[in-house]
Amino acid sequence: MTFKIAILGASGYTGAELVRLIATHPQMRIVALSGERKAGQPMAAVFPHLRHLDLPDLVKIDEIDFAGVDLAFCALPHATSQAVIKQLPRDLKIVDLSADFRLRDPAEYEKWYGKPHSAPELQAEAVYGLTEFYRDEIRSARLVAGTGCNAAAGQFAIRPLIEAGVIDLDEIVIDLKAGVSGAGRALKENLLHAELSEGFHAYAVAGTHRHLGEFDQEFSKLAGRSVQVQFTPHLIPANRGILATVWLKGRADAIHDALANAYKDETFIQVLPLGEHPSTRHVRGSNFVHIGVVADRRAGRAVVIAAIDNLAKGSSGQAIQNANLMLGLEEEAGLMLAPCFP
Amino acid sequence: MTFKIAILGASGYTGAELVRLIATHPQMRIVALSGERKAGQPMAAVFPHLRHLDLPDLVKIDEIDFAGVDLAFCALPHATSQAVIKQLPRDLKIVDLSADFRLRDPAEYEKWYGKPHSAPELQAEAVYGLTEFYRDEIRSARLVAGTGCNAAAGQFAIRPLIEAGVIDLDEIVIDLKAGVSGAGRALKENLLHAELSEGFHAYAVAGTHRHLGEFDQEFSKLAGRSVQVQFTPHLIPANRGILATVWLKGRADAIHDALANAYKDETFIQVLPLGEHPSTRHVRGSNFVHIGVVADRRAGRAVVIAAIDNLAKGSSGQAIQNANLMLGLEEEAGLMLAPCFP
Amino acid sequence: MTFKIAILGASGYTGAELVRLIATHPQMRIVALSGERKAGQPMAAVFPHLRHLDLPDLVKIDEIDFAGVDLAFCALPHATSQAVIKQLPRDLKIVDLSADFRLRDPAEYEKWYGKPHSAPELQAEAVYGLTEFYRDEIRSARLVAGTGCNAAAGQFAIRPLIEAGVIDLDEIVIDLKAGVSGAGRALKENLLHAELSEGFHAYAVAGTHRHLGEFDQEFSKLAGRSVQVQFTPHLIPANRGILATVWLKGRADAIHDALANAYKDETFIQVLPLGEHPSTRHVRGSNFVHIGVVADRRAGRAVVIAAIDNLAKGSSGQAIQNANLMLGLEEEAGLMLAPCFP
Amino acid sequence: MTFKIAILGASGYTGAELVRLIATHPQMRIVALSGERKAGQPMAAVFPHLRHLDLPDLVKIDEIDFAGVDLAFCALPHATSQAVIKQLPRDLKIVDLSADFRLRDPAEYEKWYGKPHSAPELQAEAVYGLTEFYRDEIRSARLVAGTGCNAAAGQFAIRPLIEAGVIDLDEIVIDLKAGVSGAGRALKENLLHAELSEGFHAYAVAGTHRHLGEFDQEFSKLAGRSVQVQFTPHLIPANRGILATVWLKGRADAIHDALANAYKDETFIQVLPLGEHPSTRHVRGSNFVHIGVVADRRAGRAVVIAAIDNLAKGSSGQAIQNANLMLGLEEEAGLMLAPCFP
Repeated sequence: MTFKIAILGASGYTGAELVRLIATHPQMRIVALSGERKAGQPMAAVFPHLRHLDLPDLVKIDEIDFAGVDLAFCALPHATSQAVIKQLPRDLKIVDLSADFRLRDPAEYEKWYGKPHSAPELQAEAVYGLTEFYRDEIRSARLVAGTGCNAAAGQFAIRPLIEAGVIDLDEIVIDLKAGVSGAGRALKENLLHAELSEGFHAYAVAGTHRHLGEFDQEFSKLAGRSVQVQFTPHLIPANRGILATVWLKGRADAIHDALANAYKDETFIQVLPLGEHPSTRHVRGSNFVHIGVVADRRAGRAVVIAAIDNLAKGSSGQAIQNANLMLGLEEEAGLMLAPCFP
Repeated sequence: MTFKIAILGASGYTGAELVRLIATHPQMRIVALSGERKAGQPMAAVFPHLRHLDLPDLVKIDEIDFAGVDLAFCALPHATSQAVIKQLPRDLKIVDLSADFRLRDPAEYEKWYGKPHSAPELQAEAVYGLTEFYRDEIRSARLVAGTGCNAAAGQFAIRPLIEAGVIDLDEIVIDLKAGVSGAGRALKENLLHAELSEGFHAYAVAGTHRHLGEFDQEFSKLAGRSVQVQFTPHLIPANRGILATVWLKGRADAIHDALANAYKDETFIQVLPLGEHPSTRHVRGSNFVHIGVVADRRAGRAVVIAAIDNLAKGSSGQAIQNANLMLGLEEEAGLMLAPCFP
Repeated sequence: MTFKIAILGASGYTGAELVRLIATHPQMRIVALSGERKAGQPMAAVFPHLRHLDLPDLVKIDEIDFAGVDLAFCALPHATSQAVIKQLPRDLKIVDLSADFRLRDPAEYEKWYGKPHSAPELQAEAVYGLTEFYRDEIRSARLVAGTGCNAAAGQFAIRPLIEAGVIDLDEIVIDLKAGVSGAGRALKENLLHAELSEGFHAYAVAGTHRHLGEFDQEFSKLAGRSVQVQFTPHLIPANRGILATVWLKGRADAIHDALANAYKDETFIQVLPLGEHPSTRHVRGSNFVHIGVVADRRAGRAVVIAAIDNLAKGSSGQAIQNANLMLGLEEEAGLMLAPCFP
Repeated sequence: MTFKIAILGASGYTGAELVRLIATHPQMRIVALSGERKAGQPMAAVFPHLRHLDLPDLVKIDEIDFAGVDLAFCALPHATSQAVIKQLPRDLKIVDLSADFRLRDPAEYEKWYGKPHSAPELQAEAVYGLTEFYRDEIRSARLVAGTGCNAAAGQFAIRPLIEAGVIDLDEIVIDLKAGVSGAGRALKENLLHAELSEGFHAYAVAGTHRHLGEFDQEFSKLAGRSVQVQFTPHLIPANRGILATVWLKGRADAIHDALANAYKDETFIQVLPLGEHPSTRHVRGSNFVHIGVVADRRAGRAVVIAAIDNLAKGSSGQAIQNANLMLGLEEEAGLMLAPCFP
């Protein structure tokens, strides 16, 4: 059976990545693509790399007949997403890629995003989309909230360690490096090639990045107490990739065991042998996560490093993985593309 | 039915690209991988991006039992390839990715490669692997010679124009730009990141590049007379991609018609509307070719620009396309992956 | 003696490059910096790499007292420049880096820039700023028009060949490759890192680039007849650098002789031995030009390749070279910085 | 007065950077360049970007007459340097850029470099070349040991904090990001453009990098007790630049005060306003250090970020700064080049 898919907000990078991945998905077919400012244009005008595909033209959202749609991916900007989703049919399955439904607590949402949520009832309903940890809820969910890409990378490295009780919960530092596509296709000076190429720097330093809201929510829930990590992301002159270097207090062998055990049956998460560590180039364009653990020279301390592709496993790949579960498909359907290296 | 595949010389970039593409090919299964210097190692040690795959370890070629192999891809270095292939079973289907069997004329081979061919009988037997132009021969071939990646890009732009008689055969300039992966994984100073990044330059300037042998052979055969193009490639600070800018004398509309007509039924070759032109980023990681035609301000002159991915359509993708034909499969099998942008 | 310098339009890349070069110029001191939209800000807020310098804050142009200024560099956008310059004091020396005063003929200006010139009397007065070819006029000029960066690269390769009569004037093809900083700091989608990195493509294909107006004016004047080159630039994923590959009919040895002879006393122009050719990485950040000549395999044809840094010799370095002449200084003053490689 | 300079090991990147900087140094003249494997070649053959300079050809070290040399820079590989330097005249001033004389304790040297030092008496004599902290010793030194580039970046961020007593000495994490030129011009697979571009990863993870020997020596000496930092560097797809993100326990305002106070009279070290932080692109090609301090969201914790150019302030620029002192010149002579951005 083939499911009919709509992508709302198809003119950004996550939208394009959804189309790229669905192009070879055996059981999904795109029936609608929206792009408010680009409505009326063929997708190939916005993304010429997709010109070989037989795709519907971009339309405005209110031109879509959702009766013929099985599942919609929402790749709209933050805040826009909640406004749109609350207008959609109540029986439509939705995977949202924005930040709008990641936080359960309205107060936390307001704290990190600066204004009250306009659809708190949906906020309560939404399931957090970190597939490997919310499989059952996702299978039966109507609305799934894709995670932040940085939040995903950090959680893959840390969640099993909290569950196994092998690290000091008050001493978690996430020093993260991210390629530029995570910032989207927006026209900002610091995203220009001439600015970024041959330069690298931190941003949202030391506690202001919104993905901290996700870390706080998820880690505290897991631990049964408040957990506040330290987190600074850095912008790296590469298009794709996230590398999360996590500095921890705990024994490397216990940490490695906890990760290896947690992910031993996971298709997409590869825990490297103790002492090895990953590179973003080895997950590029794919839904895979590579995780390494190395003991620090100081006893009782370790470094965990996780690599993902921000657009794939960090966003659109994750979204399809969730949609597969929601539609009753094989979880891996359409997602086994090998990384594109070099 | 699933065919059993061997890849000889799997430790280079074209070998890795073959594995990447076969990983999601519905009817091919890799049963043997060779790498003389890396024999005994798992493929994941050489290419960690392939670690999620269940692949045989690398072995030496003479350890492979070819009785269980339906088709072998040879991704060995030039000159090594001819020595190896003449030792392989006579009934084994082979797609060679080296330069060894591209030229039919032993004298031309010696001229461009500097020494006599050691397997001239195979040289005579081999079919030139530019799929769209040698389909029938390839279907029944035992040994197919993959084309040079630059040679492929140039021919996609020019062959239909020679056939249609719409250009001046004595005035063809191919100014080509190529990403660095085409130079392979060899340790050369000019391939270092610190040398190449933020720098670009020509190489094999003005008539010394070996792919000229292919241009001469193919264009002269097509034209029924000697055709000698001018050709200079440039090394660009990018990993993948070839952009061939072809300067021609002829009417742009006639040129566009000839190309559009020649490729109207081709899955992988997209001729853009007259006046538009391609970018390498829109074919990255894929088997697609984008071709554009623009009229020059000087009457009777035009520019044709063709973009391909050197590792995919220029090499390993083309090889699989040919293997599909040789094995009686759908020509597109395993090759419909959308370009990986951004 | 130290001359007092104003830079109008200091918030773009050519403005920043002027400041970088003047920072170590022994006889220039910056007394005013303008930036309409950034007025009131310190330069370090706009360009943090200049924070070690003791610079005046950015102001609006009409806040500058030009009585205390010896020479002004105008790095304003095209069209703005002509409006501003005609308001400046008549006795102020000006080096304009925009396109506004490059073309002598009002009709040509209108043809390439799409509207009538608003200061035709200044257009007549301005001297074309290709230093090595207009030294005497520049020395006594009040208003010098900096050349286009692409136009400079092409002219360095071709002018001496026209003068020496060693090439076919009807068969000149300039296939040019340019780094992205030449496009400025403007917020355009195709200048984003995620778009440009790992991709390359042509633009203004086959006869529409405005620098053609300069080629036409200069080459025709030199030749005493109409000369119309063919010209297509390409955008390369690098920040700096222009590589002009010029395809010519003529004997390589005569071409090389003409270039070597023309530039034998030039400090900034290096003609490589016949058969060698340049790379942009070897002129990066400097005022130098490297030029190579290679004979094509087809008799009577040759390739000339010229490399410059677009922001330095192609724009701000050239501007300072011209200002040195206008102020009676050593032509090389402040410009002998070695290229910054790697 | 002009001093006569020899550069031993001039065929690597630090050698080239020395030449680049000395090219515009007002009081240094290069009289000898050595390169064992390239002996007999002109420097322009090894580094074409230096072709405009009038430089001596490369020779073997034993061909140099050191009687005519005032100061030698040794940019030789580790281990080679100690063997060479002990053969040089005892009265020759030397700035060594290798790792050979950075550690005072022979046991520490052996621990980090894996074999006994072959010139322990010179090891004792050498002065550690972190200019801002060893000025007086450097002025009177005969042999100065340039610091590791990573070690320099880390120390600029941390030394004043140890001296001021404002941080917890047992909780120092240095998460460092470095461009590729720091790895030199060696032919290694992981330095190839196709490997590194579009990929980033850690190396020498969690306590194995040799620059830790320097951190241990210097920080312990300063603190008067053993201080063992945690340190992991990452390789970033850029040619130049080091960004050291230092995670600390201490009050951000006290940390900022300590840094601002320590560096208030330093020409090359710029402490940004509290809350701001640097980018490598703003120090590229220059001898400047930019340091920022940001308070973490968790009370009593802060992040300090330092940016330098690894080849300039991290190596060759630092070496010239030290040589200036040793020769009685202005410390800033030749080093005021502004960063080369974009």
